[in-house]
Amino acid sequence: MITAMFAGRAENWTIYEPSLHKAFAEKGLEVNLVTSTDEPNNVDYMIYAPAGPISDFTPFTNLKAVLSLWAGVEGIEGNKTITVPLCRMVDPGLSEGMIEWVTGHVLRHHLGMDKHILGQNGEWNNDVVPPLARDRRVGFMGIGELGLSCAVAVATLGFEVKGWSRTLKTVEGIDTFAGEDGLRKILSQSDIIVLLLPDTAATKNVLDREALNLLPDGAFIINPGRGTLIDDDALLDSLNSGKVAHVTLDVFRVEPLPQDHPFWAHPNVTVTPHIASATRAESASLTIAENMRRGEAGEPYLFTVDRAAGY
Amino acid sequence: MITAMFAGRAENWTIYEPSLHKAFAEKGLEVNLVTSTDEPNNVDYMIYAPAGPISDFTPFTNLKAVLSLWAGVEGIEGNKTITVPLCRMVDPGLSEGMIEWVTGHVLRHHLGMDKHILGQNGEWNNDVVPPLARDRRVGFMGIGELGLSCAVAVATLGFEVKGWSRTLKTVEGIDTFAGEDGLRKILSQSDIIVLLLPDTAATKNVLDREALNLLPDGAFIINPGRGTLIDDDALLDSLNSGKVAHVTLDVFRVEPLPQDHPFWAHPNVTVTPHIASATRAESASLTIAENMRRGEAGEPYLFTVDRAAGY
Repeated sequence: MITAMFAGRAENWTIYEPSLHKAFAEKGLEVNLVTSTDEPNNVDYMIYAPAGPISDFTPFTNLKAVLSLWAGVEGIEGNKTITVPLCRMVDPGLSEGMIEWVTGHVLRHHLGMDKHILGQNGEWNNDVVPPLARDRRVGFMGIGELGLSCAVAVATLGFEVKGWSRTLKTVEGIDTFAGEDGLRKILSQSDIIVLLLPDTAATKNVLDREALNLLPDGAFIINPGRGTLIDDDALLDSLNSGKVAHVTLDVFRVEPLPQDHPFWAHPNVTVTPHIASATRAESASLTIAENMRRGEAGEPYLFTVDRAAGY
Repeated sequence: MITAMFAGRAENWTIYEPSLHKAFAEKGLEVNLVTSTDEPNNVDYMIYAPAGPISDFTPFTNLKAVLSLWAGVEGIEGNKTITVPLCRMVDPGLSEGMIEWVTGHVLRHHLGMDKHILGQNGEWNNDVVPPLARDRRVGFMGIGELGLSCAVAVATLGFEVKGWSRTLKTVEGIDTFAGEDGLRKILSQSDIIVLLLPDTAATKNVLDREALNLLPDGAFIINPGRGTLIDDDALLDSLNSGKVAHVTLDVFRVEPLPQDHPFWAHPNVTVTPHIASATRAESASLTIAENMRRGEAGEPYLFTVDRAAGY
């Protein structure tokens, strides 16, 4: 009998308990699933969220692996008390949700929807025909698994898509850029920027004042990635000068975003409450169960974190 | 030398004059392009918009064809003074624009974007995880050229797509329905309805009170088709009862929509000013020029209107 401990947020237990049991059954695992224990040395697997109750893993002396419920691991990868493999969540439901959110907000800015959603004032104004997608350039900063899926979906709609990554990747149908020089190029050639980079030392404030100034006038920025990617003060200045027309932010340095933060009140900022994509319990539980099956069978885990690189 | 008369709206002349001349040159045509004439019997081709200056074609005794700038022909097909072939506009730019608009608004309702665009009040509320596209059913009423292109784009994003037409069509990847019985089925099985039917005697008020009542509770309706497809009073009632959660309307019985029309003030109606797709002068001019080339060469015209069927 395997013992697994659920150390996610308490409010998620009711959602995860049934889907985890279903996933264990599907993978042929007999699991004693607990939310607390008096015998930490009996716990084989920790199902973990950085916002949950556990931060010191020292008492769990026989742990085989830590299985994160989160795709991002910046709240956990520096935890020195974890000495076993750490696997991040790769949830097909999460990727699908992110693709839908990114594609939707790219189209929203492309079509200028807000003017109509906010302006139901009886004025019939259709003099300006917006450009077609094929005449609109969308730059993806971060073309890892998630970023690339989003880039491909947006390219399929006809947009001219570019992608930037730390090291150069070759992708069919997408112009790719890398490094400092590539960063300058993609910024100056994108009408809409989508940020899907991980949070690492190298990506902090990647959109700083200098970078924002490279954007074409009236650019849009969409950040479903990480709150640390943008210099917030420089962003507010670029919005006030009109350099950036509008930003849609789903992630922030502090979450929930404090009520008095200037982003809430700014007419050209849309705050969404970290919803760009949520892990779906059903599909996420299958990823957890598959890694437990692999652990028991002595097979390599999926989605292990490279803790030196930080992702 | 061919004589062509531009009888579109005056404000469009400045946009169309250069692109028509460019298209004529591209097709190897020498054309005397005018906006009025003292010798109507010299006019070979009429480039025409129903909202333009011409409604009586009797004086144009040597006309070879009427080339509409509009995709819809309900303002012109009943005109008994037209005795020559009448061709509607099929503009690749128009189709692309429509696909972008429809996909964008489907995603907007799917993601519940308005809540965030309208509600920047500092409240961080992410408790409800919306369904994925694969769990959302989108019904297209009208799967002609334009409707089908939109349906395919929406299906590509993972939505469960159904299509309805007067006579049954078979389309890969899309469940199709036809006739009265099929109408009841698609309405009862669609969370989001997109209307892309032509305006004919048979489609007037296709979404009447009875049809609206068949929708699942909380359905969304998107109408970029024709204003006559919906019974406006029944629609307002279904919005007030909550049966329909929100409608986005781009077309109306009277355009511009009068300032005092209840649609403007209703919190669950979004009015857009007939922008779902606009003909793009550059690509539309090529369609016009190609039909003139065909007329001169004695080849069959493209996109002729079947005036008995009304489309």
